[in-house]
Formats: sequence, C-alpha cells, structure tokens
Amino acid sequence: MSDRKQFRDLADPDVAREAIASLDLAPDSETVPLAEARGRVLAERIDADLDVPGFDRASVDGYAVRGRDTFGADEADPIEFDLVGTVHAGTEPEIEVGAGEAAEISTGAVMPAGADAVVMVERTEELTDADAETPSAVAVRNAVAPGDNVMLAGTDVAAGARALGPGTRLTPREIGLLSALGLDEVPVRGTPTIGIVSTGDELVRPGEELHSERGEIYDVNSYTIAAGVEEAGGQAKLYPHAGDDYAEMERLLLEAADECDLVLSSGSTSASAVDVIYRVVEERGELLLHGVAVKPGKPMLIGELGDSAYVGLPGYPVSALTIFRTFVAPAIREAAALPEPQTATVRGRMARRERYAEGRLRLMPAGLVTDADGETLVYPVDKGSGATTSLVEADGVVAVDPDTEYLGEGEEVEVQLFSPDVRAPTLLAVGEDDPALSRLLDRLDNPRFLPVGSREGLRRLSNTIPDVAVVAGPVDRDVETVDLGGWTREWGLVVPAGNPERVDGLGDLVDRDLAFVNRGRDAGIRASLDAAIEDLATERDTSRRELTDAIRGYGVGTKGFESPARAVARGSADVGLGLRATADALGLDFVPLGTEPVRVRANPDRVERAGVEELAAELETASDVFASLSGYDHDAA
Amino acid sequence: MSDRKQFRDLADPDVAREAIASLDLAPDSETVPLAEARGRVLAERIDADLDVPGFDRASVDGYAVRGRDTFGADEADPIEFDLVGTVHAGTEPEIEVGAGEAAEISTGAVMPAGADAVVMVERTEELTDADAETPSAVAVRNAVAPGDNVMLAGTDVAAGARALGPGTRLTPREIGLLSALGLDEVPVRGTPTIGIVSTGDELVRPGEELHSERGEIYDVNSYTIAAGVEEAGGQAKLYPHAGDDYAEMERLLLEAADECDLVLSSGSTSASAVDVIYRVVEERGELLLHGVAVKPGKPMLIGELGDSAYVGLPGYPVSALTIFRTFVAPAIREAAALPEPQTATVRGRMARRERYAEGRLRLMPAGLVTDADGETLVYPVDKGSGATTSLVEADGVVAVDPDTEYLGEGEEVEVQLFSPDVRAPTLLAVGEDDPALSRLLDRLDNPRFLPVGSREGLRRLSNTIPDVAVVAGPVDRDVETVDLGGWTREWGLVVPAGNPERVDGLGDLVDRDLAFVNRGRDAGIRASLDAAIEDLATERDTSRRELTDAIRGYGVGTKGFESPARAVARGSADVGLGLRATADALGLDFVPLGTEPVRVRANPDRVERAGVEELAAELETASDVFASLSGYDHDAA
Repeated sequence: MSDRKQFRDLADPDVAREAIASLDLAPDSETVPLAEARGRVLAERIDADLDVPGFDRASVDGYAVRGRDTFGADEADPIEFDLVGTVHAGTEPEIEVGAGEAAEISTGAVMPAGADAVVMVERTEELTDADAETPSAVAVRNAVAPGDNVMLAGTDVAAGARALGPGTRLTPREIGLLSALGLDEVPVRGTPTIGIVSTGDELVRPGEELHSERGEIYDVNSYTIAAGVEEAGGQAKLYPHAGDDYAEMERLLLEAADECDLVLSSGSTSASAVDVIYRVVEERGELLLHGVAVKPGKPMLIGELGDSAYVGLPGYPVSALTIFRTFVAPAIREAAALPEPQTATVRGRMARRERYAEGRLRLMPAGLVTDADGETLVYPVDKGSGATTSLVEADGVVAVDPDTEYLGEGEEVEVQLFSPDVRAPTLLAVGEDDPALSRLLDRLDNPRFLPVGSREGLRRLSNTIPDVAVVAGPVDRDVETVDLGGWTREWGLVVPAGNPERVDGLGDLVDRDLAFVNRGRDAGIRASLDAAIEDLATERDTSRRELTDAIRGYGVGTKGFESPARAVARGSADVGLGLRATADALGLDFVPLGTEPVRVRANPDRVERAGVEELAAELETASDVFASLSGYDHDAA
Repeated sequence: MSDRKQFRDLADPDVAREAIASLDLAPDSETVPLAEARGRVLAERIDADLDVPGFDRASVDGYAVRGRDTFGADEADPIEFDLVGTVHAGTEPEIEVGAGEAAEISTGAVMPAGADAVVMVERTEELTDADAETPSAVAVRNAVAPGDNVMLAGTDVAAGARALGPGTRLTPREIGLLSALGLDEVPVRGTPTIGIVSTGDELVRPGEELHSERGEIYDVNSYTIAAGVEEAGGQAKLYPHAGDDYAEMERLLLEAADECDLVLSSGSTSASAVDVIYRVVEERGELLLHGVAVKPGKPMLIGELGDSAYVGLPGYPVSALTIFRTFVAPAIREAAALPEPQTATVRGRMARRERYAEGRLRLMPAGLVTDADGETLVYPVDKGSGATTSLVEADGVVAVDPDTEYLGEGEEVEVQLFSPDVRAPTLLAVGEDDPALSRLLDRLDNPRFLPVGSREGLRRLSNTIPDVAVVAGPVDRDVETVDLGGWTREWGLVVPAGNPERVDGLGDLVDRDLAFVNRGRDAGIRASLDAAIEDLATERDTSRRELTDAIRGYGVGTKGFESPARAVARGSADVGLGLRATADALGLDFVPLGTEPVRVRANPDRVERAGVEELAAELETASDVFASLSGYDHDAA
C-alpha cells in the first residue's frame, strides 16, 4: 500500500475546536436591501436620523381644535365650533385653526397650525344649516386637553436616538423599525462563503448517470454539507468534482481558497484521495492539525490554504455530517454571528444500556422515540458509518466522553440533532417492508419505518424500543403484543413477462436449473417460502436441505422486497421470490405459491401513543389502499 | 364624515380563524433542484429506484479473498495468498480472484469476481521477492468469513424501498439520502405566494424622500409583513403603493389576486383607504367577514378576490404584525406544510398585575425580562398601537380572553413571540438617553434600552421590572439601588455654528427674545436646567416661574436628547438645551452651563444577572468611550 498517514498522534477534540476557532472565517460586512435583510445580523448600530412621526400627528379621526376652547364641554352642554376645513392623511394642511374653530381631521394627518388637540369623531356632531349642503359647524361633547389624541413629532422615535444595536438579528419587527426610519438598505454581517470540494474518482453528482459496475456511487456529502452550511448561516459553493489527481486537486483547492472564507473537502473514503488533499494542504498551505481523537472523524484535517481556512471532513456521510455539525457549523455560525437554535439539541433517556470504552470521544448516532409517558428515549443507531440510511434513521449524535465505560439504561443524555428542524418521529415502526404499508405510512405525520424484516422486527419490538412491528408470514417467536390489524398478500415466484421458462411452481425451482433470487432470512416472505419448501420435502419424503441445495441462488438473500423481482426484470435471474403486487408493478409475470398474513403488532405500552392510534385508525379505514394492490385483502383486527 | 363601516357585529376570533382556514392558500406542488430543496417539504413519497450501494463494496482497505481460504489463519500462522492485482474505488475490476489468490482493494471499491470477503490491511503483510520491485504475495494473519468487510449491493437502501414520505421536511440529512438515490430534483410543496398591497396616500416607501410637512410617513407594514410571510414559509410579493383611489386600488388588488395565493392589504390607518379596499372586495370578490372581536385588529377583513384569498390587516404596525402572526401566519405555514417552530412561544410570569375587562380578545404586546432566579417575567408594553417602537420594545403578544378581568402578578402566561428568532434581552435598561450609553450598549449582547428619561426611568426601576436605570442630573426620588458606575457630561445651550446671536449664558434666554427648544420633564438634563434657573431666580431675587415664563419655548419639551440641537441645526430655533458632545457631533456651537453626573443604578435583586455584570464591567473599563466624547469624564463606581 502507499505511504498513507496513520494519524498516530490524535489531537484532543478541544484542541481541534480551538484550531477551528483560531481560523478567521468572518467575511467583511456588506450592505443589503431591506427586503433581503431578514435573518441577517446588523453590522453596526443604527441611530435614528429622523423623528418618527416627522410631524404632530392626529391619532384618531375627529376634529382638530385648540384644547383650551373645549373646556367645559360635556354631553349635556356641547360647545359649537366653526368648521374651517378638512385635513386628510398625506396632505399638507392649508388652514389654520383659530379660537372657536375646528378642522375635520383623519387619523395620521398633520395637525393644522393653531390646533393642539383632537376631539374624537364619536364625541361630536356636525351641524348643517337648513339651506346648506355641507356642515358649517360641529358640536363638541367633551373637553380635551392640549396634546390629547395628538402624537407629537419624535414621540415614537426621536432623531439621534439609538434604534438598533450591532449584532441585532433582523426579524420582522426590526425590519419594521428600519422601515419607519426610511432605510432601504442595511449594513449587515457578511455571509461566510464555504467552498465544498468533493473528491474521489468513484463519486458521481446526483442526476448524472451512474456506472455501478465501475464502483461509482453518488456524491452524498456535497449537497448534505452544502445544506448544513446554509442552515448554519453560510453560503455554500460547490466545486466541480475532483478525482485523485494531484495537479487537478491543487488547482481546485487553491481556486476555492481564493474565492471562499472556508474550504471543506469531503466525499471520498479512499485513502489515495485523502492523501492527495493532505499533500496539497501541506505543500500549498499550512496544516494545523491532522487526526482528531474522535469517532467518527479521526482523519479530520484542519489548516489554512491561502487566505482561507480549510477543514477536511471524513468520507462517510454520517461521519461527515457529524463532524461538520460538531466542529465546523459552530464556527460558521460564529462568523455569521448567528446563535445555535435552541431546538438544535434535545435531552432524553437512554432506551437501553450501551457499552463504550472507546478511549476517544465518540459521537454516537442516535435515534429518538417517545415512550408511553411522553418521555424522549434515545437509542444508538449503529449501522456502520458507511450507511447513508443512518442519516435518516438517526436524529442526531450523543457525545460520549473517552472515559465513559457505558451509558446506563435510563441515563439522561443530550442529543445534538443533525438539524434544528429535525423532529422526533411520531411513530417508530420496524419489520416487513410492504407496498401497502408504504401507503399507510404516507398518511401519517412524520412516521419512521425501519425495513429490518419480520423476524428482526419482532426481536426489536421485544426490546421495547419501537412502537410497532410489521410481521409477515409464519412467526417463530413469542412476543407479547397488541394486534392493531393487518392484511393478507399473495406471494410466490416472479418471472419475466410471458413466463418464458414456463415456471409452474416450487417444484420447477428444485428440479430445473433456474437462476433464483431469494430474500434474506429476516423477511416474512422468506419464512413463507421455507414453510412451503418444508411441505414439499414432506410430500417428496426428503429433507428440506436436500431441496434448498438444489435451488440455484437459494442461499443468497437480498434485502429489498422488490430486489428479486428487479433482478428478474433486468434479466439477471429467471425467478425471484416476491409479491403479486410487485410483479404487477414491474410488469412481470407471477406464479402464486400462497397467501400470507401481514399483521401490525404494537408494543403494549405504546398502544395509546398518538402515532400508534393514528396508524390503528388508518388500518381500520384504509380499504382503498388494499383494494389498489393486486393480491391484497384487508383483514382488520 | 363618510359612510364608514362601523363593524358593529364583530365576529368571534375563532370564526375568523375558521374563515381563514377555509381559504385555499396552498399552491400546486413544484419540482426544485436538490441544491435548493433544503427547508422545503416533500410533496410525495420517494421510493428508492436503485440499490445503494449499487455493487458489492469493500468497506475497508485491504485484500479481497475467498473467505473460506483464510480459515485457520492467525498471527502465529499466517496464510500466504498470491497477489493477482489491485482494485481502486471508482474502477471496474479487471481480475477474478481464485482459490489462494488475493487482490489489493481500496475502501469503496467493487469486489472482484470470485472474492467474497476482505482482510483488513492491518492484518496483512506484503511479500516481495528478493529480485522484484513489487510484492507478489500477501500474508494474511486472520481469518474472515464470507461477507466480512463487504457491504452487499442494496444493503444500505434496496431498490423499491420507501425512502422518504410525503410531508417530510428536507433537512441536510434528507438531502443526503436523496443524493445517495441520485436525485437532482425533488417534488416539493409549493411556496404560497402572498401579495402585499400597501394603501394610503400618506405612505412612502423606505429609501424615497419623505415630506413630513404633508404628513407623509414611511410604509412600515409592507416590509414587516413581507418578512413575516417569508418567515412563515411563504414568498412575499410587494405591489407598488396604492393611494385611496378606487380604480387604482381595484386594478392593483385584482392584479395581486391573479398572481398570488393570498392578498394582504395593509398600511393605512386612514378610514378612506380602508373604505376603498372594503368596496373593492365587496364588489369584485366576496367578503366573508368584516370586523373581529379582537384588540387590536377590529377592522380585519377576510374574503376572496378572484381565485385568491384576501385578508385586510389593520394599519398600525404592531396591530398589523400581531394580527398577521396570530391569524395569517398559521394559514401560510399550513399551506407550506411547515410546523410552527417550538421557539415561537415562551412561557413566563406576569411581572405585575394588569387589569382588563375588554369584552373582547386582547392581544397584549408584552416584553420579556429575566428575574434574579432566571425566570422569565412578562410585562405589558402599552405605548399606543401607533408606536413603531412597540415593535422592538415588545417581544410578542399575550392573548387575554374576553372574560379575563385581570392578570395577576406572578400569573403564568404564554407569549406568542413576534418571531421564532426573537430572544429575550439579556439586559433591560431604562432612563436617560446618552451617546456614551449608546456606545456601551453596543458592546453588550442583545441589550434593550428604553429612553424614557431619568425621572421615569427611576420610577420604573422602583417597579422592579427593569434591571438598571440610567439617571442624569439632580434626582428627586429616593429609590434603593446599587450604583454600577457612571460618568459626567457637560451640558448647556446649543447654538448655531459661530453663535450668531452671541448667546452667553442662561440670562440671555430670559432677557432676550430667543426661540428656545427645551427637553421634556423626564430628562435629567431638564432637571439640571431647572436647577440652574432656580439658582438664577434666587440670584435675581425673583421666582423661577417668572423666569421660565420669559423663555420662549420653555414649556414645550422634546423627547430626543438631540432634538433641541437638531432644531437649531435646521434653523427652526436659536438655542437648544443639549450636550457639548451633541453640539460637536452636529457641528454646532455650545455655551456651557454646567456638568452633570450620569449614574447607572441597578435593581438590587438583579446585580448578579449576567447582563448587569457585563454592563458593570464595561462601565469600569470603557474609558475609551468617555475619552471619545467631548465634555465627558469617566467616573467609575
């Protein structure tokens, strides 16, 4: 192998945080139009440069008068004023109000000269002479003091006063005050620009064609981290994908360093790509730190490239997002002067004991579920950091200290959510993947389903973490559950359209040399197949093993419920284990072998949880779902 | 007056909510690029259309072998394999691994045909023949089972599986999963477009020239509500300002209705503008409801215009934002499928008893302050709904039921914040406005200062709501406080540059016919002036009243500390009461009358609050602030 860095001297995570904090990510301040200022942070103090209002302003509809002329007026004894004109809002008064005179005035209008108070219209009555069309006088039925119903110029905001301080986050109300001051642009803290350089020859941008046979995979980190950057208040700039070539990588990294406040590299898990970046940063910048004592993320790099800061993230998506969230996002928020949202962390209790003793900080991916008492439970999600699905099966990470030996069941922990917008699921379901189930879940608000298969689903339900398990086929495990309802589905052999091999039943699989694709052992449909094989063995007076050995492909189980049918569809198998509904959906033919029940079984403690009740209600009423799938029958609780 | 609607039959607020809920604001779904999908909500379920990974993938760096060939290998007894080649990530393997053979493989690379397991590089050693440059074999020091260190195709996500459900909010992690599935565009719920039509002849857009003499004011509501719309997940569209003309208003409203999902009108408090809108909606659309039993916001209109919904907001900024936040924002969020952020409300205790008995729902503007125990206190902010500053002096509103007679001191209430991004201030200061204070406040994180003057400031401090009061000049009230420090400032008469009237001292004000601009009674500097007049009266053996009657303008007090000086600067007065620092800042001349102390006095219960301690620390160390202002001297506690 190449002379890959081994990162023997891992830095303490706090040292890594300090190294990142020492980098200067803050861009210059800038001026933005008021209409785009929401969410930004003021770069400097704003003092009022004008009085608000800029004139003495009537604050009710009514009549502007000299207050002292109204003294003594009351309901029984109104005082009459001569009407000298009208002042509308938005016009300059052309009249002056003298002793015993009044002017009709609208809310918001300028007080005419001479007047110092307004009588509300409700306390007046217009008087019109018998032969006139318009009133000539007004009777005032209550007294007002000078200043009554008038807002003096500068009462709201006085010119020269401090209006908003530097560092103020601009929400709608601050936008309102800035509007009142007449500002149509605002000095705000700059948005840090974060360049994202994705590396590795195997990565392909979403939307482009993927060649799996070459080991290509879609680039997950670029868009994930870009979204994280923008959530933290930065602006993400994606650079075209770089391979493992030194010259190309150098050019890209230096271009990004020139254009951005911080450059993140991320993407590849391949050692050679990491090596190339390492060399570029070492040769063209300064490497402050390589390797941090944290799991995941050990190979993190921190340095400088030109005038830009540089952080190298791990390649696996969950690791990259975790390290970004824990080490990099706080620095971006700091540079953008935005606080971490309160909702970015939640507290909960460990759903079960979890052993550690890692010897370094562990950022453990964790899922959230709510127990019967409404308390948040936290459970580790450990699918291996290469799994993209950990991203959506976990809700965040728990930081476990290096010297922690275990987290006890019920121990309170803090979960740093992957996003302040992450919400704990309202329902945690596990078990058999099924097209009817998918449609039922579509009708619920924020459910989580882990397609672990029926057997594993029941096992997990017995661990009391999930709310419900969806269980298909024969069951060999005794778990106390509450049945919420279910359906039946027709299962059998999926064959190419037209059934070219004329497959007729299970016997063909055993007796002929057909390429078969099976499901994994945890699938309920696999248990149904195994039961059918058992029956055939009995019928033929032989052993099950004898029969399965004769089926080419029996031993390799695929994970997805459509996987065998898809293998048939693309021509890489003759027969696949699957559902009639799947064969229909993919335009394939189907040889039925039987009908199996699918039951939704609830953790007895969680039956009254809202999400479980909603699912139960859908199960009862969603006959349309079952009617729309061939081979399905509704079979309520 | 015109035949203005009186809204005698006010609708119940719940009826108004239902009326708004009955309007259809939800736009069609749309497809957006993945890079712009963050924060959006999935319009439909996304099923995986490919396996992730799409091939059997090495999950460590090492050697691909047939697992069964390694059985028996251990540290003491390694097994040798012939090296048949190398497989890098992102390349198609060109080799096949037979019995006793191994291929070097990188993490993420495609498993070569024949191999079913990978031995980690750390458990191997390359063997190079004496005369060769490259290794020809590898010694394997531990046994691996078939499948070890290999991630089978579809293990992470299987083609056909439900990946994300409809209604899922797209945070970085969901963006990650969508990337892994190769999607570069995503079907999302549409963003409701909200048209904002601003009305009233008196309104001027920020940035344009303001003619205060005509009663013009800046349009506060348009940008405020636009920011609120975007915060709620809508897209705001501002229409050019409309006056009170029926034909123009009709044209604008119908144009907005045609282009938007919801039209909001807002801006004017003038009855005629409201009348015009009312008529347009009644004649060209359908008015569902006019007038709601809520304070503020009684004149709210709800209806339909063409295919669009319509809501008319009150004219005063705080009222408009309050009604928007309470009635309209929830409907926009619903249409955008976004939940209300958890941080949009906080609970706290009433800082003092507050009487009501309004007979209708009251949405009371309220400020937040933290008491000595860290508990949130809520106090009413009642400056009259016309005051823009209520927007930033209040943090949100408390909904008080129609039949509530009073809220008791200590009673728990819920505050609906004006924005989920609103944070309670870290310090609530009241009292004398002062340029040194402004600079000190700039150094604190999120302080709130209410420039109510020294006298009113001390009064409020004695009510125990604020943390500190800033008090200038002589004090006539005895309040128990802790002095945190302060400064002195030179005060006197501000005159035009060059002092054209040759003003020499207080005597000139009394003896000559000079136009004087005073400060209000709550200002500390006014108390200093009054004390000086008292001294002059004693000296002249006359009464103070005698002297003040002789000063033209003595009786009218302005609010801002710069107001008198600004009046002098624009030529509308000969002399103004003010600071040497203000005269300097505005390029005016100054006739000193004395030096007055400014003290920062803390509520004894709050001395240990972080914000108060920070202010005290700044007071101690910020000599540079005082050195930078003419006539100032630092005078620490």
